[in-house]
Amino acid sequence: MSGSSLGKLFTVSNFGESHGTAIGCVIDGCPAGMVLTEADIQFELDRRKPGTSRHVTQRREPDTVQILSGIYEGKTTGTPIALLIQNEDQRSKDYSNISDSFRPGHADFTYWNKFGIRDPRGGGRSSARLTAPTVAAGAVAKKWLKERYGVQIRGYMSQLGPIEIPFESWDEVGNNPFFAPNATVIPELEAYMDALRKEGDSIGARIEVVAENVPIGLGEPIYDRLDADIAYVMMGLNAVKGVSIGAGFNCITQKGSEHGDEITPDGFLSNHAGGILGGISSGQDITVSLAIKPTSSIRIERQSINTKGEPVTVQTLGRHDPCVGIRATPIAEALLALVLMDHVLIQQAYK
Amino acid sequence: MSGSSLGKLFTVSNFGESHGTAIGCVIDGCPAGMVLTEADIQFELDRRKPGTSRHVTQRREPDTVQILSGIYEGKTTGTPIALLIQNEDQRSKDYSNISDSFRPGHADFTYWNKFGIRDPRGGGRSSARLTAPTVAAGAVAKKWLKERYGVQIRGYMSQLGPIEIPFESWDEVGNNPFFAPNATVIPELEAYMDALRKEGDSIGARIEVVAENVPIGLGEPIYDRLDADIAYVMMGLNAVKGVSIGAGFNCITQKGSEHGDEITPDGFLSNHAGGILGGISSGQDITVSLAIKPTSSIRIERQSINTKGEPVTVQTLGRHDPCVGIRATPIAEALLALVLMDHVLIQQAYK
Amino acid sequence: MSGSSLGKLFTVSNFGESHGTAIGCVIDGCPAGMVLTEADIQFELDRRKPGTSRHVTQRREPDTVQILSGIYEGKTTGTPIALLIQNEDQRSKDYSNISDSFRPGHADFTYWNKFGIRDPRGGGRSSARLTAPTVAAGAVAKKWLKERYGVQIRGYMSQLGPIEIPFESWDEVGNNPFFAPNATVIPELEAYMDALRKEGDSIGARIEVVAENVPIGLGEPIYDRLDADIAYVMMGLNAVKGVSIGAGFNCITQKGSEHGDEITPDGFLSNHAGGILGGISSGQDITVSLAIKPTSSIRIERQSINTKGEPVTVQTLGRHDPCVGIRATPIAEALLALVLMDHVLIQQAYK
Amino acid sequence: MSGSSLGKLFTVSNFGESHGTAIGCVIDGCPAGMVLTEADIQFELDRRKPGTSRHVTQRREPDTVQILSGIYEGKTTGTPIALLIQNEDQRSKDYSNISDSFRPGHADFTYWNKFGIRDPRGGGRSSARLTAPTVAAGAVAKKWLKERYGVQIRGYMSQLGPIEIPFESWDEVGNNPFFAPNATVIPELEAYMDALRKEGDSIGARIEVVAENVPIGLGEPIYDRLDADIAYVMMGLNAVKGVSIGAGFNCITQKGSEHGDEITPDGFLSNHAGGILGGISSGQDITVSLAIKPTSSIRIERQSINTKGEPVTVQTLGRHDPCVGIRATPIAEALLALVLMDHVLIQQAYK
Repeated sequence: MSGSSLGKLFTVSNFGESHGTAIGCVIDGCPAGMVLTEADIQFELDRRKPGTSRHVTQRREPDTVQILSGIYEGKTTGTPIALLIQNEDQRSKDYSNISDSFRPGHADFTYWNKFGIRDPRGGGRSSARLTAPTVAAGAVAKKWLKERYGVQIRGYMSQLGPIEIPFESWDEVGNNPFFAPNATVIPELEAYMDALRKEGDSIGARIEVVAENVPIGLGEPIYDRLDADIAYVMMGLNAVKGVSIGAGFNCITQKGSEHGDEITPDGFLSNHAGGILGGISSGQDITVSLAIKPTSSIRIERQSINTKGEPVTVQTLGRHDPCVGIRATPIAEALLALVLMDHVLIQQAYK
Repeated sequence: MSGSSLGKLFTVSNFGESHGTAIGCVIDGCPAGMVLTEADIQFELDRRKPGTSRHVTQRREPDTVQILSGIYEGKTTGTPIALLIQNEDQRSKDYSNISDSFRPGHADFTYWNKFGIRDPRGGGRSSARLTAPTVAAGAVAKKWLKERYGVQIRGYMSQLGPIEIPFESWDEVGNNPFFAPNATVIPELEAYMDALRKEGDSIGARIEVVAENVPIGLGEPIYDRLDADIAYVMMGLNAVKGVSIGAGFNCITQKGSEHGDEITPDGFLSNHAGGILGGISSGQDITVSLAIKPTSSIRIERQSINTKGEPVTVQTLGRHDPCVGIRATPIAEALLALVLMDHVLIQQAYK
Repeated sequence: MSGSSLGKLFTVSNFGESHGTAIGCVIDGCPAGMVLTEADIQFELDRRKPGTSRHVTQRREPDTVQILSGIYEGKTTGTPIALLIQNEDQRSKDYSNISDSFRPGHADFTYWNKFGIRDPRGGGRSSARLTAPTVAAGAVAKKWLKERYGVQIRGYMSQLGPIEIPFESWDEVGNNPFFAPNATVIPELEAYMDALRKEGDSIGARIEVVAENVPIGLGEPIYDRLDADIAYVMMGLNAVKGVSIGAGFNCITQKGSEHGDEITPDGFLSNHAGGILGGISSGQDITVSLAIKPTSSIRIERQSINTKGEPVTVQTLGRHDPCVGIRATPIAEALLALVLMDHVLIQQAYK
Repeated sequence: MSGSSLGKLFTVSNFGESHGTAIGCVIDGCPAGMVLTEADIQFELDRRKPGTSRHVTQRREPDTVQILSGIYEGKTTGTPIALLIQNEDQRSKDYSNISDSFRPGHADFTYWNKFGIRDPRGGGRSSARLTAPTVAAGAVAKKWLKERYGVQIRGYMSQLGPIEIPFESWDEVGNNPFFAPNATVIPELEAYMDALRKEGDSIGARIEVVAENVPIGLGEPIYDRLDADIAYVMMGLNAVKGVSIGAGFNCITQKGSEHGDEITPDGFLSNHAGGILGGISSGQDITVSLAIKPTSSIRIERQSINTKGEPVTVQTLGRHDPCVGIRATPIAEALLALVLMDHVLIQQAYK
């Protein structure tokens, strides 16, 4: 309840700061008997890892995960699985010039006001680096959901700044550093990012996540709805400013005769609902969209104040993602996996 | 935790079905010593009440609230406040023709599959009627937040189907049945709704909610963020398919040099963040947008199946809101109040 | 989570004050499809009801339960079951003389200091009357556990003040007002109570509760252990000052070679563990003992202070139980049922 | 909710197995700004450490704690504090002979039945070694409670098997390996333990814990009472079979005129309540007693079964505590600190 745990029956407790000793999480509630290795988790961490292309932060973090507990002879024992990722590349000097100032649009300001103390090294706990434990925990959930229920969770980038990325094929998503489901648009994306980097600016993006083969009946009627929990985890992802399900904001101009998905004995005829009706999964694909803001750490000078309230000019040097949306896809997949895992366990409880 | 409770330190447990004996909630965690009467709560319930104009459902429910506990000599005692609303207008015959069929876009289908049993009377627990206890609890939170911290929470409709409603003045919101902040647009809205009613169709809407004078520092860095909790409650409101904060989905095409709100000794120069940075309130106004889908209960015939999986044609008669967005404003305000109340108490815990 | 709810997957939220409008609870998480009537619940409430013999409080409360929600056509729907008990016999004048003073050994003092306001009518929320909703919720859990798993939960009084009550037969428990499992000792108990009532004093008691046919494997290794949860609910019962499981405090002088229950292919040879090993149920009977203090509301004059801190003499008139232990048996059974119900659902979640 | 976390606002999530890579915990909810070093925590861990006298297990574990997060420049930042203790002395061969059999009185049996898989190395997660993270977390709570509210929490052994240990002085507790508050009795305790070790048997014990300067008003009226939470943590401590507060089981034979603590303007005249009235702290010393069973790991041969259900004879070799009660005092102190810490934060929330 103190704010760093997620989930009721599959609970993930996150800890760590960007440039502290280590980051990690404790997964509590993983069913016993599943084969689980560090490689299973490392695969997803590597998809999110920094430094894999020139379009993301050049910080070199191997993000190597170590399982500390909860596994015996290669299988989960039903007890907490603690995961540890050592911080290695700690060039904290890059941040020294901003430790007393607040970057416009950054959590510096709110952390300082909330806690009265702030770890400025690499953004401390507000760093997007803290999504790595989420991805690690999500890998465990993904594996279990896949093996037990055949659930498949995948995501892609559908828009980078002004460039819309038409969906072509899931097969393309792994072939480029943008998680774009379309080969044709890659040169345009690369040119856009190269220009942006020269400007020293950053840009927003839109991510889609889809879950297939989701059991019917996940979610509770009021408050603990599945859509509510999805919105919770997605809006809680760094830099997200909007979350929608199914038709999303387009539903505003839809009439009921268009929006309501007709049903036949062979299934639904459309999916404006995004797989959720009345807060409960319908068995259709769950489709989620995220709006991700441009990062606040940019080279362009901006007006701000320091911790004394005096006016200052802030310019963020160091190694930052010019588009945090680029690495967001595996994180969004992990978050959706964590929500579904929790709800599947809850559903099992009442059977 | 079994799904019908909201909040950690200010907990609301919701119960009831649309046409059962009664609906209500238990509020646990209201600080002692606040003056509280049924009139304080009734005021907000009346704003949400059905039957107040020809544009909403004609069901006649007085929605009279009764306080069962937690008050002594007019003041809160710090113990649970149970609120009861008797169901009075139970014309359940209107629903008889749909008890074995699933309305396209309605929770009928998922409830049936989840529970194997379903109260079909007026939608049972999936009815929007179950937002009344939320509004009642929100009234308590609103009052406390106003008295203790001067927080003001208000909302309005910014779009009804294709008609955008430019913000003109808060003063207009109470003068029309749409919660529209603009007098000029009312005739257009009324004409649109009258035509829609004749068609037997329904329409979506967009609602904005704003909280002013919010204390800085509400929300936790990871998972229990303020933005996450807002998204949770808002997406959990019946018919909502999208939630955004501040710039929302517009942030996708914004550059960091535009999105990041610059700060001066006199305050922020813009509010793209919507009052939340890194998941924590910044002291700026919190601004939230909701996309509300068209209701699925329409007179137009639609394809569907029945509980045996056979194809049927469904047409929903009875008394329904052609635009559930019209009555959503007070509910969205209540939900924001509940989230803020909970986070303010949490903040007090660590002081 | 603000303190008046119990259980994670079978959650009971309690509300009300002794002489307020009503008391009750919301049960959230009852599986769908169980036949449930008010009579099922009333049966247990009647076992706890005041006024059934001259040895308990003469307050006349019928404690009639009303189901407000969660049932459709006689079956649970899987949604919250709200239970309401109206308060009828409200002779609040009896308490007027103590509203500004603190009874030695009573919660008056702590409520006043905690909340700064106190409902003095009948003890307000500190009244043992508030165990009625717990008994009602326990009746639902008992029924489900019995039907689904064959679990049987029974209790009895094993000591009243200085009089030990040897266990003779479960059949006797319902034949006397003490829940004593022994017919021979009844005259002695009655004589003791009659003398005590004349003195205007009160006395302690010891209660045993036993659960049979409990599934193996309930409880988690660390923190959320089954023994911990049993201790939690039992110590939280009004007037309880001690809780033990199996050998209890006798284990202090036992050697390991005596205490550890040997196992054969036909089962355990003893049950010093009380059915729980390492916090997890072993399938043996769960055996729990409670020490219940004498009530603080006695006619004998006692030294105390008033709300101004001045010395006063306190004498409690009105209708009180001279031995609250007498009515504690059905409450303790209900509490054990609630704990087991919650853990059985949790166990099902991970299967 | 998955069972390995304790506390609502000061949450401790425990992980690890006796002979795995490491054990530890994540503390979530420690207020920001407190000076905290590893030495503060190590001090309490050393009090619980094995191998410090011939009367406890000879396993050599330095139990060195490492802080992984949540501290910046020597102060808590308000974010999760992850604590890690590497396992070093892993002589797992000692346990090979029991991996397929169940020790009478041990959690072997229930873990196997619950999870279908069991880490047999040193008892895996059922080992008393897993109390080390609890002690570490308790050290943080103790420090904060002391600095902020002057709360002092201390414990001692009051009985070892048949030998009662009269309280003489707190000063003696640290002078002997038994945490006995009495120098005179030490030779008798040592002789008893030496004889017991030769027999290869084990013995129970009784521990007292006392908290002084506890703020008035901690605990909620129903369910989340302070006494309930104390019982929860104490009964959840390995080997505990009974918990009592204040007069405890002696209250059974007390009359109300004796038990109820009279109050004067200068304070209470006795403390049969053990500092808690109606579930809420009264400001008096909180006094708790624990009954600790003899460990099940003894050299004496015992009847049991193996995982195939066949009869076997079990004899536990290896390094075990002949009286787990001896090292229980610092753990019980830590648990009381954790409960009080949580309730103090909750109290602050409502101020």
